Amino acid sequence: MTSDDVKTFQSILDPGRVLTSGEGTSKYNEDWLGTVRGASSCVLRPRDTREVSSILAHCAARQLAICPQGGNTGLVGGSVPVFDEVVVSTELMTNIEAIDPGSGVAVCQSGVVLESLDHALAEHGLMVPLDLGAKGSCHIGGNVSTNAGGLRLLRYGSLHGTVLGVEAVLASGEVVDCLSSMKKDNTGYDLKHLFIGSEGTLGLVTRVSIACPNRPKSVNLALLSLPDFDSVVKTFKASKHQLGEILSSCEFIDAGSMDCVTENLGLKSPLDRNNFYMLIETSGSNAEHDEEKLNMFLEKMMTSGEVEDGTVATAPSKQAEIWQLRERIAESLLKDGYCYKYDISLPLSVFYDSITVMRQRLEGQVTRVVGYGHIGDGNMHLNITTPEYSQQVMDQIEPYLYEFTSQHRGSISAEHGLGFKKRNFIHFSKSDSAVRLMKQLKTVFDPQGIMNPYKVLPDQ
Amino acid sequence: MTSDDVKTFQSILDPGRVLTSGEGTSKYNEDWLGTVRGASSCVLRPRDTREVSSILAHCAARQLAICPQGGNTGLVGGSVPVFDEVVVSTELMTNIEAIDPGSGVAVCQSGVVLESLDHALAEHGLMVPLDLGAKGSCHIGGNVSTNAGGLRLLRYGSLHGTVLGVEAVLASGEVVDCLSSMKKDNTGYDLKHLFIGSEGTLGLVTRVSIACPNRPKSVNLALLSLPDFDSVVKTFKASKHQLGEILSSCEFIDAGSMDCVTENLGLKSPLDRNNFYMLIETSGSNAEHDEEKLNMFLEKMMTSGEVEDGTVATAPSKQAEIWQLRERIAESLLKDGYCYKYDISLPLSVFYDSITVMRQRLEGQVTRVVGYGHIGDGNMHLNITTPEYSQQVMDQIEPYLYEFTSQHRGSISAEHGLGFKKRNFIHFSKSDSAVRLMKQLKTVFDPQGIMNPYKVLPDQ
Repeated sequence: MTSDDVKTFQSILDPGRVLTSGEGTSKYNEDWLGTVRGASSCVLRPRDTREVSSILAHCAARQLAICPQGGNTGLVGGSVPVFDEVVVSTELMTNIEAIDPGSGVAVCQSGVVLESLDHALAEHGLMVPLDLGAKGSCHIGGNVSTNAGGLRLLRYGSLHGTVLGVEAVLASGEVVDCLSSMKKDNTGYDLKHLFIGSEGTLGLVTRVSIACPNRPKSVNLALLSLPDFDSVVKTFKASKHQLGEILSSCEFIDAGSMDCVTENLGLKSPLDRNNFYMLIETSGSNAEHDEEKLNMFLEKMMTSGEVEDGTVATAPSKQAEIWQLRERIAESLLKDGYCYKYDISLPLSVFYDSITVMRQRLEGQVTRVVGYGHIGDGNMHLNITTPEYSQQVMDQIEPYLYEFTSQHRGSISAEHGLGFKKRNFIHFSKSDSAVRLMKQLKTVFDPQGIMNPYKVLPDQ
Repeated sequence: MTSDDVKTFQSILDPGRVLTSGEGTSKYNEDWLGTVRGASSCVLRPRDTREVSSILAHCAARQLAICPQGGNTGLVGGSVPVFDEVVVSTELMTNIEAIDPGSGVAVCQSGVVLESLDHALAEHGLMVPLDLGAKGSCHIGGNVSTNAGGLRLLRYGSLHGTVLGVEAVLASGEVVDCLSSMKKDNTGYDLKHLFIGSEGTLGLVTRVSIACPNRPKSVNLALLSLPDFDSVVKTFKASKHQLGEILSSCEFIDAGSMDCVTENLGLKSPLDRNNFYMLIETSGSNAEHDEEKLNMFLEKMMTSGEVEDGTVATAPSKQAEIWQLRERIAESLLKDGYCYKYDISLPLSVFYDSITVMRQRLEGQVTRVVGYGHIGDGNMHLNITTPEYSQQVMDQIEPYLYEFTSQHRGSISAEHGLGFKKRNFIHFSKSDSAVRLMKQLKTVFDPQGIMNPYKVLPDQ
């Protein structure tokens, strides 16, 4: 990149929207976990699709590589440059263009922070159909680009179901308008799905249209403690049956995770220590009905002995306190020193075996091996900590854990994506023919290979 | 195609599974509506993926075109040959391989009839997350290939959300295994979405994995009559608010559609004639709660005058009778002679204008202009009938109706697809850049253009 390129960018963007080295570019170069760092000397902050298109057209003509960046909350190094890619941040693309209370469809730019979108929707009695710990800083465009899952996928489904339309700019600068706001549109291949979850390697998402459910009138949250993992599975299955249509979240936390969040962050659990905990949330349209269903369910589980203790929160502030015990586990793990993070899908029959197997394997070599996550979606967050990074520990984990996951036909990345860190493990979850097709698709969308290079696809 | 090709097919498939002219090939050449007819002299009926792969590899080597066929219930001529393509029918691929009651995931071959799959799931307390009039003969593989919508999309979402995995055979004969049965899998580009809704032009779907919800313990169905379309919209919006999580279907029928199904098929409506009708279904886990919610909702709508009359059915047989009034409209329209069928998405603000505009335009020239469909999803089935096909009427409809739809940013094919009949109208719903990308994708998946040719993509 030359000073002429910077001049071109300055002709596209107002002053203050082209950052070069020494002007605060460092935060755009490092990921949230502090494990990946790039060396970009140029950060661009466009305000609209036209500007993104001009930037990308120039980069294409000059063969300059680009790293699209949303809230930079990703966990696999997908949102920071690897070398000196030009960072294109969506942080100024924050316009919420339309909210239709009748259809529930919202249309906005990709840089809208998830929580801001949810607040805007709340005024119309609507909600975003996804929620995750990073909601205060992640961008909806980043959520779409990484196919973020989160805490309520079990109720509202994946973004492949709720995102109705995407506008994206290709590596060439060409704008692809798939921004339908219709719930049904079977006219040709549904291209938007290729932008959902491809982590900015096929195009930069500029606008999104999303179907938003009604905000529930009644929300209850139960924190339960359970003696063993078998009881966790039984309680999950019973919750699906008994809570049915009002079940909106089903999370589990093992004792090690709860210890970490209470010890390292000083949070306090309202329950006595036990081997497992679950968070079960209901969301519905009739408070009386919801409470009756939840009480019947809890009574049954306490009587049968699967649930040993529990507390139910109906006040939002109390619920927020309880959610912290789950949502801040990731943060608490970092306090141990180094955290080896894994995000896998597994069948329930071997779900917790992943933890016990790794615990045996790493006994005496690590601080913790803990598991928590979205049991309702078969999604385990497996985390291992040591005081500092150890290659010896890493070699014990990888590829062993991926082999374990692959043997059980699980997914080696359930919701975090592959990004920079996990891309060379893709073959543990995908066949050679599938990976070959992905590479061909990449060539169609980005023939010069300049969109978020070294991400998602494997080297060879 | 030569006799040597037939011999090769006979070496792949047992006797009776290669049909040539005069051996019952005609039903595979004509669509359900009787409006499109091909001239294939060869129908192949494989039993498994390996056989499909061998067939397609031979066809690729010989550059023989293929028409994949499921239950042949499509409405846009996508499932029958245009010329002499080899028909590959999935009708013998009927194996339900696995149903996991815990996770709710079913894995099966693509030729399983939708209703059969639903019956098998019922034994485990589960249900297929889609339902449509053709359930007794359509195949799940065809549903996936056309991204079928149907009566309960508003509750259970689109197949892009519920289908977890797809196995497909490419035009080359190569098998692409994306048959995950995990709810979350963010490892690389999610290729299965390209097979969902591409109508067999990118590959032949051989196996499917699908997330199935619990079968509801309680189902109620209300048939309502309303004085005007404004009341229909208000009732739909109120149902979303008041019935919330138990609303499982919201359909509308105009007087013209109701007249047709009662006059032409002799069915009887339990309500007096009115300008509009709605079917509102609830599905839930607690009969008492559901009935209370439904009664409160109906009381409110009757009091406010939006709903003028109504009946509620709780017995399955009575519900089935009422559903016939909706599900058999398509059949009843054919009795008028010729039916010009349109399946569009529109914003609710102009939803019924599509009917009134066409009625004015065609006054005195046609038997009926009627509208019914999935108002809960913004999806209108607009149908026009004449005693026999009239090019003059057709010229009055097309492209006028597509222009109307496009002006309002609707979709010219909400759930039926483009197939053979609508492919040249794709530009009314999709941009040039999107269509160009689709053509490039087609080249990646099917470089010789032999998979279901003359379908989905436009000529030029």
